[in-house]
Amino acid sequence: MSRNLPVNADMIAGDIEALAGITEPGHPWTRRAFSPLFMKGRAYIEARMKAAGLETRIDAAGNLIGRRTGRKPWLGTIMLGSHSDTVPDGGRFDGIAGVTSALEVARALGDQNIELDHDLEIVDFLAEEVSIFGVSCIGSRGMTGQLPEAWLSRVSDGRDLAEGIAQVGGRPDVLMQQNRPDIAGFLELHIEQGPVLEAEKEDIGIVTAISGITRIEITVDGRADHAGTTPMDRRADALVAASQLVLDIRNAAAELAKTPGHFAATVGEFRIEPNAANVVPSKVALLIDGRAEIRADMDAFCRWLDGHVEKLATACDVTIRPPNRVSDNLPTPGDAGLLSTLEAACERVGAKHRRMASGAGHDTAWIAKVAPAAMIFVPCREGRSHSADEWADNDDIALGAAVLFEAVREMDKSSNRETPNGTHTR
Amino acid sequence: MSRNLPVNADMIAGDIEALAGITEPGHPWTRRAFSPLFMKGRAYIEARMKAAGLETRIDAAGNLIGRRTGRKPWLGTIMLGSHSDTVPDGGRFDGIAGVTSALEVARALGDQNIELDHDLEIVDFLAEEVSIFGVSCIGSRGMTGQLPEAWLSRVSDGRDLAEGIAQVGGRPDVLMQQNRPDIAGFLELHIEQGPVLEAEKEDIGIVTAISGITRIEITVDGRADHAGTTPMDRRADALVAASQLVLDIRNAAAELAKTPGHFAATVGEFRIEPNAANVVPSKVALLIDGRAEIRADMDAFCRWLDGHVEKLATACDVTIRPPNRVSDNLPTPGDAGLLSTLEAACERVGAKHRRMASGAGHDTAWIAKVAPAAMIFVPCREGRSHSADEWADNDDIALGAAVLFEAVREMDKSSNRETPNGTHTR
Repeated sequence: MSRNLPVNADMIAGDIEALAGITEPGHPWTRRAFSPLFMKGRAYIEARMKAAGLETRIDAAGNLIGRRTGRKPWLGTIMLGSHSDTVPDGGRFDGIAGVTSALEVARALGDQNIELDHDLEIVDFLAEEVSIFGVSCIGSRGMTGQLPEAWLSRVSDGRDLAEGIAQVGGRPDVLMQQNRPDIAGFLELHIEQGPVLEAEKEDIGIVTAISGITRIEITVDGRADHAGTTPMDRRADALVAASQLVLDIRNAAAELAKTPGHFAATVGEFRIEPNAANVVPSKVALLIDGRAEIRADMDAFCRWLDGHVEKLATACDVTIRPPNRVSDNLPTPGDAGLLSTLEAACERVGAKHRRMASGAGHDTAWIAKVAPAAMIFVPCREGRSHSADEWADNDDIALGAAVLFEAVREMDKSSNRETPNGTHTR
Repeated sequence: MSRNLPVNADMIAGDIEALAGITEPGHPWTRRAFSPLFMKGRAYIEARMKAAGLETRIDAAGNLIGRRTGRKPWLGTIMLGSHSDTVPDGGRFDGIAGVTSALEVARALGDQNIELDHDLEIVDFLAEEVSIFGVSCIGSRGMTGQLPEAWLSRVSDGRDLAEGIAQVGGRPDVLMQQNRPDIAGFLELHIEQGPVLEAEKEDIGIVTAISGITRIEITVDGRADHAGTTPMDRRADALVAASQLVLDIRNAAAELAKTPGHFAATVGEFRIEPNAANVVPSKVALLIDGRAEIRADMDAFCRWLDGHVEKLATACDVTIRPPNRVSDNLPTPGDAGLLSTLEAACERVGAKHRRMASGAGHDTAWIAKVAPAAMIFVPCREGRSHSADEWADNDDIALGAAVLFEAVREMDKSSNRETPNGTHTR
């Protein structure tokens, strides 16, 4: 690809390569939040922010922010960001592509001597991935006053989360009072972590919504019997009942996936007891991970499930406790205005684009609760993510960065119509 | 029940109760082979053998044997026996019912001043259950020259099996040369460990065959994908494929179970990877435990399975390696003559009886390789076994002991027709 882009692809590639080098040896690419390697990665990013002329700070929630002051700061802040932490043995691009692209947008604006009316902030959110404290999106929740206070007492490695946030430079003492009413608009670039853009040869996914995530626990209780002596027709085999349930869940999800709006349901955790060769399984505990772009789909799935397990229990002569919704988050739609802005930006840089939902959670979901926010996806190879195999072509990332660049310029113009004392409208 | 039996039910009850008292406290009823408690149990049994006038010894394979000499010892030995070891937290009756019943038969013969022509031996076989050395039926295999020599080097708790056998009084140095051409007939009483006799209100099961046990490993390889982002129709979900396989195996086994001859197949071990909430399962490893009274049934099942997994792999877009038969034992039919003898004995004591297969393995299967052998089952509550809940009514066990008593008298008469220098005919 040799398009004439408003951003420098090589600068992004260099930053991604440099961050990939900051990894646990033998576990590419591991740079978990709160670790010394994470702090080393952040030092690199902060140095690059400064080199791009940004003024850096760590906010109360431990987010690393690089700021470029605008001509009319009262218009509010245009924010771009993602995260630099990884899962163990995770990918080179998940989060990192978004941070380095955002940084390149700021750098390109500077290189081209483009002044914005708005302030521009580039953010490396703290601990988007599930961290050693067992929770995710700490920085984006914390920045917007949505971090549950009880989480600060979660302990790992002999320290609590409050101490962890303080160690990265945050201020747990004032964290619970945070909010950011100044955000005029937020954009995040991320790799798709799915196979659709690659398969359909699209450059950019305009994310219509971040799916809600619902986790449902089900326990099937049968009866342990001698596998050799118990006739086939006198068994209450928990594994047989649970196997039927796995297939039924898959089929119900596949049906919902055919209707408009992303839907997926996966049995990802599945444990049997006593798990002994010569004993009929007495118990299966399984966990369903459900994702819905449209809340009505999840409601329909849960209603179906509640009724279905009752029928299945009767048919299989087992006991199935009512499904237990252990967590349940609503879908987060992207801001309609920003989606249009992003589409226009795609057209301007000549990127083939389609609307699609995100099946995964992102920092954007938390920022979207307090400000107009939207995301774009860039393709990744075979949908691989959270694995050492994760790969995204740098040209694809650079094209995404160009879309961000164009969108930021448009956002700067459009919300310029507001009055000096006005904040964003939502 | 107050039948006029040729055995004393109270003596059996007393012995079972005494052995139940010799258990790990807090883990009723645990008396694993090679443990100090096991030795304590054996000391009790040996004392009771002596009190019944039997001459006791430990054979080379570590079996405890009580002998009553007959008038014509050249006719060979009639042998009764089972085992006194238990599984962890195992039952009061599994094995123990057979040892105490056999002992009561010898005692009753003495009490009634009945002399037999044959020698009579009452045997407590060593380590019928899977022991700390990871293998089972050590005593019955060892007595008959069928113990694999390599097993003697199996190590547990800092000693090998050879040392374990020596510690219980056996002679590992001459163990590999053992054989017992003198056994004229062998009988074992055992609890059913299944629900059939209780459900059908039968007193005695005449065991037509001990099912062969075939264990088959199957590995299903799918593809780990992000559970949120991967569309339902682009997955290679190993759990979905394995769930279909579990149902198909159950249905195939249920069909074979409807034809003559016991058949069962159970998926008792089942593990998924990576077993993470938000990852499509990439791998399932499962183990099938198959039992067949009729070998042709197992052959048919294995043929079906080999073909079926290929079709299923294609249909589910996963890889399934060819099923791996990790162990495969043939069925052991009971001796036809002894089955008739046992039926006649049931009629004589007024016991309702039916023919049935054993789905579980027993010492009888090993003795049957070298001598005429057969088993009877007595009912147990709800088929429970290998559990603290295991229960058999003492009246049912006593009725079974009476059947043994009558059968022994008949065996003593019938093989009396042989010549002084003849051993059993088979």
